[in-house]
Amino acid sequence: MNTNVSANSESSVVIGIDFGTLSGRAVVVRVSDGAELASAVHDYEHGVISETLPGSSRQLPPETALQVPEDYRAVLRRAVPKALADSGATPEQVVGIATDFTACTVLPTTVDGIPLCELPDLLDRPHAYPKLWKHHAAQPEADDINALASQRGEFWLPRYGGKISSEWEFAKALQVLREDPEVYERTDRWIEAADWIVWQMCGRETRNVCTAGYKGIHQDGVWPDHDYLAALDPRFTDFVDTKLAHPLSQLGGRAGGLTAQAAAWTGLPEGIAVAVGNVDAHVTAAAACATGPGQMLAVMGTSTCHVMNAETLAEVPGMCGVVRDGIVPGLWGYEAGQSGVGDIFGWFVDTGLPEEYAREAAQRGLSAHELLSEKAVSQPVGGHGLVALDWHSGNRSVLVDHDLSGVIAGLTLATRPEEIYRALVEATAYGTRTIVDAFDSSGVPVRDFVVAGGLVRNPFVMQVYADVLRRPLHAIGSDQGPALGSAIHAAVAAGAYPDIHAASAAMGKVERDVFRPDHARADAYDDLYAVYTDLHDHFGRGGSDALHRLRRIRNRTHTQ
Amino acid sequence: MNTNVSANSESSVVIGIDFGTLSGRAVVVRVSDGAELASAVHDYEHGVISETLPGSSRQLPPETALQVPEDYRAVLRRAVPKALADSGATPEQVVGIATDFTACTVLPTTVDGIPLCELPDLLDRPHAYPKLWKHHAAQPEADDINALASQRGEFWLPRYGGKISSEWEFAKALQVLREDPEVYERTDRWIEAADWIVWQMCGRETRNVCTAGYKGIHQDGVWPDHDYLAALDPRFTDFVDTKLAHPLSQLGGRAGGLTAQAAAWTGLPEGIAVAVGNVDAHVTAAAACATGPGQMLAVMGTSTCHVMNAETLAEVPGMCGVVRDGIVPGLWGYEAGQSGVGDIFGWFVDTGLPEEYAREAAQRGLSAHELLSEKAVSQPVGGHGLVALDWHSGNRSVLVDHDLSGVIAGLTLATRPEEIYRALVEATAYGTRTIVDAFDSSGVPVRDFVVAGGLVRNPFVMQVYADVLRRPLHAIGSDQGPALGSAIHAAVAAGAYPDIHAASAAMGKVERDVFRPDHARADAYDDLYAVYTDLHDHFGRGGSDALHRLRRIRNRTHTQ
Repeated sequence: MNTNVSANSESSVVIGIDFGTLSGRAVVVRVSDGAELASAVHDYEHGVISETLPGSSRQLPPETALQVPEDYRAVLRRAVPKALADSGATPEQVVGIATDFTACTVLPTTVDGIPLCELPDLLDRPHAYPKLWKHHAAQPEADDINALASQRGEFWLPRYGGKISSEWEFAKALQVLREDPEVYERTDRWIEAADWIVWQMCGRETRNVCTAGYKGIHQDGVWPDHDYLAALDPRFTDFVDTKLAHPLSQLGGRAGGLTAQAAAWTGLPEGIAVAVGNVDAHVTAAAACATGPGQMLAVMGTSTCHVMNAETLAEVPGMCGVVRDGIVPGLWGYEAGQSGVGDIFGWFVDTGLPEEYAREAAQRGLSAHELLSEKAVSQPVGGHGLVALDWHSGNRSVLVDHDLSGVIAGLTLATRPEEIYRALVEATAYGTRTIVDAFDSSGVPVRDFVVAGGLVRNPFVMQVYADVLRRPLHAIGSDQGPALGSAIHAAVAAGAYPDIHAASAAMGKVERDVFRPDHARADAYDDLYAVYTDLHDHFGRGGSDALHRLRRIRNRTHTQ
Repeated sequence: MNTNVSANSESSVVIGIDFGTLSGRAVVVRVSDGAELASAVHDYEHGVISETLPGSSRQLPPETALQVPEDYRAVLRRAVPKALADSGATPEQVVGIATDFTACTVLPTTVDGIPLCELPDLLDRPHAYPKLWKHHAAQPEADDINALASQRGEFWLPRYGGKISSEWEFAKALQVLREDPEVYERTDRWIEAADWIVWQMCGRETRNVCTAGYKGIHQDGVWPDHDYLAALDPRFTDFVDTKLAHPLSQLGGRAGGLTAQAAAWTGLPEGIAVAVGNVDAHVTAAAACATGPGQMLAVMGTSTCHVMNAETLAEVPGMCGVVRDGIVPGLWGYEAGQSGVGDIFGWFVDTGLPEEYAREAAQRGLSAHELLSEKAVSQPVGGHGLVALDWHSGNRSVLVDHDLSGVIAGLTLATRPEEIYRALVEATAYGTRTIVDAFDSSGVPVRDFVVAGGLVRNPFVMQVYADVLRRPLHAIGSDQGPALGSAIHAAVAAGAYPDIHAASAAMGKVERDVFRPDHARADAYDDLYAVYTDLHDHFGRGGSDALHRLRRIRNRTHTQ
């Protein structure tokens, strides 16, 4: 036990760790005021596995996205000691540690929490590995889950905008059952990486209400019942009982004390508070002082996650989920999301940036994104004649359909790369507006729009969003929102603050009205947004099944 | 007069000149067998003018495409003597010369044929310059022409697939009238460059039946009448009488003898036969031995022009035109076209080829097109999940709508440049199939499909076309189809053959079944073509006006 420092002492610090898609980041934060003393990043050795398993040459199916659990442990061993050393704080000052994770990133383990992919005889089985959030190969399973739930009128379906995503726990588990029954059979626990990493740190299995609600199907205190599961697949009847169900823990709670092993990994004192697991976007609400009702936080990175609290339960069409206590205890937490944002811009830079642009960027010491943003920023709104659909990675809200794909309309022989880049940025802003409009018209109005995540650093992108949304953007005052948010939860778990709101008020950071809409541009965007909505509804709401047919044709060639 | 060689002597040669979009090409051809003895190219100094006039910094409006007449004369002075010198033939062996031109490329001149843009006080007036075929700024005028013709039930409208193109003589002239009435007023002749260059060579104004029919509105021996023109604009009432009407000349006819001035320019004997003007695509039918009924010739380059003869008059939806004697005397000549083909591929290479691809191509000594074709050729049909609409330069057939624009659907974060390239190639093949299907279902079936033009040299592109069309492709046996076709017409004009069919049989070149369809690929393409047709009809036939709205929004920003 750490007995040198009381949790709310002036010298107390906490550690927040954000487990992202490609790396984990630890930050050391002062409990009293949220000052970020130091941080360190560790890149996952295996990154995202979508082509072949380590040591294998066998091609994985399309839409596969796996990870390696040992890469997560390496963050504890590498990033935590480095951040602490750089912070100038001593281990004895650390009163708590908390983590957040991508979600739904989910893995099968033994009853002791050993990932199945670490068992020697399962090393070469793709389904034994953690399925990353953007693993989209379980769409057939999601389709079946939704069709059955709709047919049976399951009460929980509207809580998810009418659709359970292929990204989530049940679809991914059902894919394992169907494609590798042996791995399914040997799965003692089907657990979010968010909870698994906490288990690794405190030696005790816990399950947080956030992922149970948003990524599992836990609503009003119950899981999908036996009849439903049996109708899905008789072998799935006891899925919840045997692999998923476990008492749930509130966010900000103390999962346990740091084990001797985890203390050895991290260099932190044994026994300090380890907080209940959490999700990267949700935890950021505390960091951005956006835990009140109507304060929508958009965490904008490779993808965007929108979280917002409200005092009432409403069914917002196509939202990802609404969960009681899902962001902070005592409120209904809403989540929506865009599955592709920054990674669409990245895709364009990686695959569509001409040589002369690459050369100019290199010569001027700019990133490709900086160069394209500079060339795009002065274009008149609509001057490119383009509208794109931001569905390169499917659509998470409001259509909840991962078989959709991206569209660009309005191309001419005069279309320049910076115009396509701008159109892609705008498309993601239209996608956000579609989500905000859905909340506004469903009785849970968006009062504040707060932005966080890596894209906040691009003023061109932010101004497009302010203009398209016709709203001022408030920005988080930290470059490491999730890790700071986790640190805030660590402070609550350590008892330094009575609740997340109080800790957020003391340790969170937000700057208001950082980007304000220009009314002339906003008016012009209204016309383009109308075109976007036309395409969105045509391709996404049944006017044409062209994108689904293209996906089927594509998938057919991969199975031939 | 050239009296040394009779037209059909073994040593007789003719010269064909093809005036293209960026250069003019002269070829020296043996009359007896069509052997191409030599050729020479001269690039237009000013190319295509779309940004600013020579010596001016004033930005031209979008969709403007102008040229400089002196660039055409330079081809006579440079390319002809060079080709003749390289051929080993003496000037005395040359019995005739013929030309073909892009169309509708049209210019205003004085009564003596002096281009208005060469008058000192009109040098800075854009409307005094020749409007290149791909000048698309007269769409509002075309819209008015079509609306009025449709309302009045003008008999000629169905001959053009129900729509007069913004590229053609009437729309472009009406644009001049509306935007620069003084230039319009001073226009004594509104003349195709195809006829103007003949006037320059033989000193005598002639007008060919081909451009009069396809690019003017000359049908059944008459032009649009006074009532129609007056209803369009009272100032336009006498347009035909004062600026356009002139006795028409049959293709293959002799326009006159080479003048002393033109003889001095070219180094050819004064008085040799100068053939009636012609159009690049139409003249190529003779070069490719495709002058019989049902033999469709596709001249595939930056754009594609389809020409086909038939014994009967039919109204093919959305074709560009049907003209009696329009390709060869005695048959109905049909024309269709795709306004963007090779230039769409070129646009992609210019604006979307990543640095690493450019580097690989340079290292391996390949063109970008060769590299992309190599990477694309082995993809399974539909494996990219993409369908594009090939409307980057509008749609000439079957929709006849230059305000349309390109679309790409099915993009994902895994989409590679070579997949987009392949999708663009396929899109143009679907566009061709749409045209062939329209002919087949209108009572003028396509029996043979013959390909010519620069794209014939890309076997990847050709195989896609064979597979998509489910037909064998026959290929022209010459790299310079239009110039060879002109040379064939020169031989007819010089009296060496009784008609174009006979000259084509002796001098033309075709290889049959060069590319044959693969049935498995053709089956897979049927599914993709169905998706293309879905998008084509949705965006092109009124399901959605999204593309038109985008165009209006774009144009609005350019006039602000």
